[in-house]
Amino acid sequence: MPNLSAAIEHLLDHKTKPPGSLGALEALALRLGVIQHSLSPVAAPAELILFAADHGVYAQGVAPYPQEVTAQMVTNILKGGAASSVLARQHGIGLTVVDVGVKTELAEHANLRFAKVRAGSRDLAIEPAMTPQELQAALAAGRDAVRSRPVPVTLFGEMGIANTTPASAIACALLGAPGHELAGPGTGLNAAGIAHKAQVIDRALALHQNREPLEVLRCLGGLEIAALCGAFMQAAEQRQVIVVDGFIACAALMIAVRLQASVLDCCVFAHASGETGHTRMLDALAAQPLLRLGMRLGEGTGALVAYPLLVSACALLREMASFESAGVSAK
Amino acid sequence: MPNLSAAIEHLLDHKTKPPGSLGALEALALRLGVIQHSLSPVAAPAELILFAADHGVYAQGVAPYPQEVTAQMVTNILKGGAASSVLARQHGIGLTVVDVGVKTELAEHANLRFAKVRAGSRDLAIEPAMTPQELQAALAAGRDAVRSRPVPVTLFGEMGIANTTPASAIACALLGAPGHELAGPGTGLNAAGIAHKAQVIDRALALHQNREPLEVLRCLGGLEIAALCGAFMQAAEQRQVIVVDGFIACAALMIAVRLQASVLDCCVFAHASGETGHTRMLDALAAQPLLRLGMRLGEGTGALVAYPLLVSACALLREMASFESAGVSAK
Repeated sequence: MPNLSAAIEHLLDHKTKPPGSLGALEALALRLGVIQHSLSPVAAPAELILFAADHGVYAQGVAPYPQEVTAQMVTNILKGGAASSVLARQHGIGLTVVDVGVKTELAEHANLRFAKVRAGSRDLAIEPAMTPQELQAALAAGRDAVRSRPVPVTLFGEMGIANTTPASAIACALLGAPGHELAGPGTGLNAAGIAHKAQVIDRALALHQNREPLEVLRCLGGLEIAALCGAFMQAAEQRQVIVVDGFIACAALMIAVRLQASVLDCCVFAHASGETGHTRMLDALAAQPLLRLGMRLGEGTGALVAYPLLVSACALLREMASFESAGVSAK
Repeated sequence: MPNLSAAIEHLLDHKTKPPGSLGALEALALRLGVIQHSLSPVAAPAELILFAADHGVYAQGVAPYPQEVTAQMVTNILKGGAASSVLARQHGIGLTVVDVGVKTELAEHANLRFAKVRAGSRDLAIEPAMTPQELQAALAAGRDAVRSRPVPVTLFGEMGIANTTPASAIACALLGAPGHELAGPGTGLNAAGIAHKAQVIDRALALHQNREPLEVLRCLGGLEIAALCGAFMQAAEQRQVIVVDGFIACAALMIAVRLQASVLDCCVFAHASGETGHTRMLDALAAQPLLRLGMRLGEGTGALVAYPLLVSACALLREMASFESAGVSAK
């Protein structure tokens, strides 16, 4: 819709400010308007959907925290004590956790959706992380979570101890890079731990040589990463604004974009993570993230912190006076 | 208060996240806690104070907009149609404009404070921008505006057509740099306009050779820049968090910090402006801005856009569960 873009740019250029002086906020307003086919895009209501799962590759010693932290953190998120809970509350954003593969049995909660495909993915260092059926079930769980929520803006995140390993492995496979270029500290590995993680990734890359995107996802991914991938495709089909979080989310997005290039048109990139390799992913997606705050937590926290910028962009486009309406002299 | 810093760091490190994984938000929480001498700093209520004035140097042809835009934009800000009005409303921040030197007579408004020192500064290209009495009156107007507001967080901004010229001149004088290194497009000069502006600055630097900070401010500044300088010093004395906006605010801050080094301890740097030379100023202040969004509007808009990050930092410190309280296993 080139006429719509031009119309939004015209509106922005006639607001009471020097043209372009709101920087990235102007580009953001334009993007939101184009996604929503509207001269007056909206940022609310917004929802945060977090997909949670455990990982067979945890057995390879690639994460410093106990594996049960996945389930414990889901409980903490639902009880309101996690970073994502605090930030979602601050911004008035509804939060849903979707269990697509947590190893531990979780207690029922109004904001928890059960869609467990398996109690954790298989160990990608020794076999494909998912069977074809498991992959399809995880993709469908992601789509289902989005399908039930016709909101204009969705933030996506994840929780899963060890999941920087599959995310790095996916990026390596798609970028043709060795493990050490994408492996980082994750939740806090030291240099020896990172080197070990890179070796595990290299072993997996050698074991699973098919570089077709769905096969990369199936063999090297994880259940929450596959669910994210499905969710991104569904959100784009519904023309929702997708607020993309950090390292794990971008790995899922790299797959989604190869399957359905138009997904990228609906994305807003929240932040450049502190995790090694995220910049490589962002570059591969030609993404310009809004924030660079050195965050590396996951749980959608980067998307949440960027969210007020979307609200600002919409408010500025909708509420600012024009030179004419305000009686301000133009150049 | 080293014990307080250590106590805040201890709190942050025991929150349910990998240590340091909230990046700049953790440093921000620490900074706010130290400024407020509190383990539980707050970001609200917050106020935005905008100082407005005209500039004699406008006569040198250094700005592309008509001079009456200063008064027109103040009216627009007060009526709610400017970018600063929209963003302040979004964040629930009270907004006050202080007229310290607008050339035009302004109509009364509940959020307008009259403290006019003179109907615009003198032309710094041919004489000092202010007399000693005018300088003192402008500094006092800044202090007064802050003194009446005992809020924990204040955002400061300005409005004044042509004010990137005095701001650049101040930075040049303090950094020992020629005009072309700090002069930028401002509200939209082309290359020839920028070269002319640099020449005007060089002429002023040659005319006013005293590099003592108050004399730099008096000869090369402007009334709203002097008011900002006074406001910063007063806010620091009241241990308020000072949210520093962009190019003009940093020029005022460079003077304030030379007069009273402790001012810097109370500052949070909102953003790196798109205006040429702002990075030089930030480096001179050893400042690490939160945002880099290419904004170059003034009016406190950079400070406003960064404000939700302060709210987030406080909320995370106050509301996140610890590993112990949430029953989450640590490493």
